[in-house]
Amino acid sequence: MATTLITNIGELVTNDPRAADLIGAIEGAALVVEGDRVVWTGRAADAPAADEVLDVGGRAVLPGFVDSHSHLVFAGDRAQEFAARMTGTPYAAGGIRTTVAATRAATDEQLTGHVARLVGEMRRQGTTTVEIKSGYGLTVHDEARSLAVARQFTAETTFLGAHVVPEGDADAYVELVTGPMLDAAKEHARWIDVFCERGAFDVDQARTILAAGAAAGLRGRLHANQLTYGGGVRLAAELGLAAVDHCTFLADDDVAALRDSGTIATLLPGVEFSTKQPYPDARRLIDAGVRVALASDCNPGSCFTSSLPLCIALAVREMGMTPAEAVHAATYRGAEALDRDDVGALVPGRRADLVVLDAPSHVHLAYRPGVPLVAATWIGGRPV
Amino acid sequence: MATTLITNIGELVTNDPRAADLIGAIEGAALVVEGDRVVWTGRAADAPAADEVLDVGGRAVLPGFVDSHSHLVFAGDRAQEFAARMTGTPYAAGGIRTTVAATRAATDEQLTGHVARLVGEMRRQGTTTVEIKSGYGLTVHDEARSLAVARQFTAETTFLGAHVVPEGDADAYVELVTGPMLDAAKEHARWIDVFCERGAFDVDQARTILAAGAAAGLRGRLHANQLTYGGGVRLAAELGLAAVDHCTFLADDDVAALRDSGTIATLLPGVEFSTKQPYPDARRLIDAGVRVALASDCNPGSCFTSSLPLCIALAVREMGMTPAEAVHAATYRGAEALDRDDVGALVPGRRADLVVLDAPSHVHLAYRPGVPLVAATWIGGRPV
Ligand SMILES: [Zn+2]
Ligand SMILES: [Zn+2]
Repeated sequence: MATTLITNIGELVTNDPRAADLIGAIEGAALVVEGDRVVWTGRAADAPAADEVLDVGGRAVLPGFVDSHSHLVFAGDRAQEFAARMTGTPYAAGGIRTTVAATRAATDEQLTGHVARLVGEMRRQGTTTVEIKSGYGLTVHDEARSLAVARQFTAETTFLGAHVVPEGDADAYVELVTGPMLDAAKEHARWIDVFCERGAFDVDQARTILAAGAAAGLRGRLHANQLTYGGGVRLAAELGLAAVDHCTFLADDDVAALRDSGTIATLLPGVEFSTKQPYPDARRLIDAGVRVALASDCNPGSCFTSSLPLCIALAVREMGMTPAEAVHAATYRGAEALDRDDVGALVPGRRADLVVLDAPSHVHLAYRPGVPLVAATWIGGRPV
Repeated sequence: MATTLITNIGELVTNDPRAADLIGAIEGAALVVEGDRVVWTGRAADAPAADEVLDVGGRAVLPGFVDSHSHLVFAGDRAQEFAARMTGTPYAAGGIRTTVAATRAATDEQLTGHVARLVGEMRRQGTTTVEIKSGYGLTVHDEARSLAVARQFTAETTFLGAHVVPEGDADAYVELVTGPMLDAAKEHARWIDVFCERGAFDVDQARTILAAGAAAGLRGRLHANQLTYGGGVRLAAELGLAAVDHCTFLADDDVAALRDSGTIATLLPGVEFSTKQPYPDARRLIDAGVRVALASDCNPGSCFTSSLPLCIALAVREMGMTPAEAVHAATYRGAEALDRDDVGALVPGRRADLVVLDAPSHVHLAYRPGVPLVAATWIGGRPV
């Protein structure tokens, strides 16, 4: 297979777990791609010959961002609800139910077009792997087709029938989710997720739903402790889930449970930005030995950003992370949150999913907030 | 002259001061450009014929952003200083003096290339008018050449020899600034500015420098009340300056002085984002009747963002502005802060400097933080 040498890299972030520093940074670096894989990294001066050579002029090269939490299958937007929330004025619209109604009314083609647009937008911002949840259909038919749409764009599809109870009795809805809806969804999904929060599903319901998902071959993940303290994070740790997401309100017991289980805490600072809520405390988690990932939670209600660069900048400004920790969390930890060992690092054998920054180092993602710094995104060894 | 009809505009923000709403929004709109000017705006259904027609597919069209405060003429960066500041670790580098040394050492060609890159980056983010200050030369020669470089990119050049005392006696430096440095700078500058702050120049020095500038034909503007309370804002109001910038620490007297003088308060939220300082209170100012502008303050030390979309999102999240107020502040008020009546609005007779958003309304600039939403930027009636 043809090889490509990317050289004159100002800073190469490898995320090599054997490196002395967290992100395995190499200055004055080069990287060789063969097919869809990385086959060599090191100092530019030591690089082997290759069929093609690309000189990136001192720019930084990072692993592509792994966005392990998004809700891209929906129709409509909620800009007016957002504007009302920001200014504290009452707004009588239906929140998530507005999006559910619009999603049910949309054709498959419309939903597919919408996801394609957002995935394209993410790629232009450096995201190379994205998890996509259902959760705005909330009928057997609409959840299954939401996942079928998502599956066209990613292997990381997540069944979130348990997003909210759309109408009627909660117990009856849990039976629907764990019965016919799961049956219809499971062929399109790798993961199952529950919004475990006051007003949505409680810990017992979450346990029931995750158990049904596991029996159907789906791995579990969880939305928990976003708005209130509660048992969701401890349930995730008890079950040994790959990740539990939000983690804004954590008791010391929750932090200890995460540390002991190894479950990733995925923080979603775009949500706190867009809801004017206090940010989760990444520093406390990292200092306690918890593995922290960053993701976008891109959705039309609580957070309509698709930008992992912004999440990195917010993590540094608001959550006590260093730029290196934030970049690692949006790449290596994101991959871990999806149980993936083929992405999230630029080391031989992993996929050549990478970002070329219009900047000399990863620090610029926080130092230059809001600036579109992604010069190129490669997926599977080629620019997209 | 040939005319171009831009039609199928989801929302046209005109900033027409005669409109009932702040931003003069028209839904389902169109706009006609002739040469470099807007000649017609209104409902798409009522649009006149034109030589060329551009259908923007329901996207929003806004006046181009007017960034009335930036420091783009410099060399080097201070990413490591930024990273240290974010994590509270000591950092022994020289702050602004690092940039002064690098700027003095750079060739004219290097400085020009650097400004070109940042201006291009700004344009891709929708900025169509930018003010550029000197202030990293701080010798007669280096201030004059900094302004000569800036002048290649904008008519809004500002002499900021009084950025900081580079070395030696402050009074002697003020004499240099108001004497030979001003003489060399004035032919390249429209404005004169002073960093009026503890550790830089006091109110009396600022008054002296602004008076010398006025005698040389330069209009005044001022950096004031960024880090501490003080008399800078009241000086700006007393002198009737077009704008006073930062305005983070304001006493009630300062607010009243701004209201009474009509001097624009230009807020720079990227600075507070990048220095972890508290944000200025835009709501208080607007409610008191003060005109508020937003600008980037793009510079390598305290704020290396060039993104007015980010500043708009921060103004909504952190400063109590509505999305409409924030957009108006980054366009119409920015123009007022530069005493310009030919930009900042899309009404017949003004320049056709505009932004096409990949979104249906201006609200998305705050609703979708960090996302590069600028689909196209037009300056003087054509895309750039
Ligand atoms: Zn979510
Ligand atoms: Zn400034």
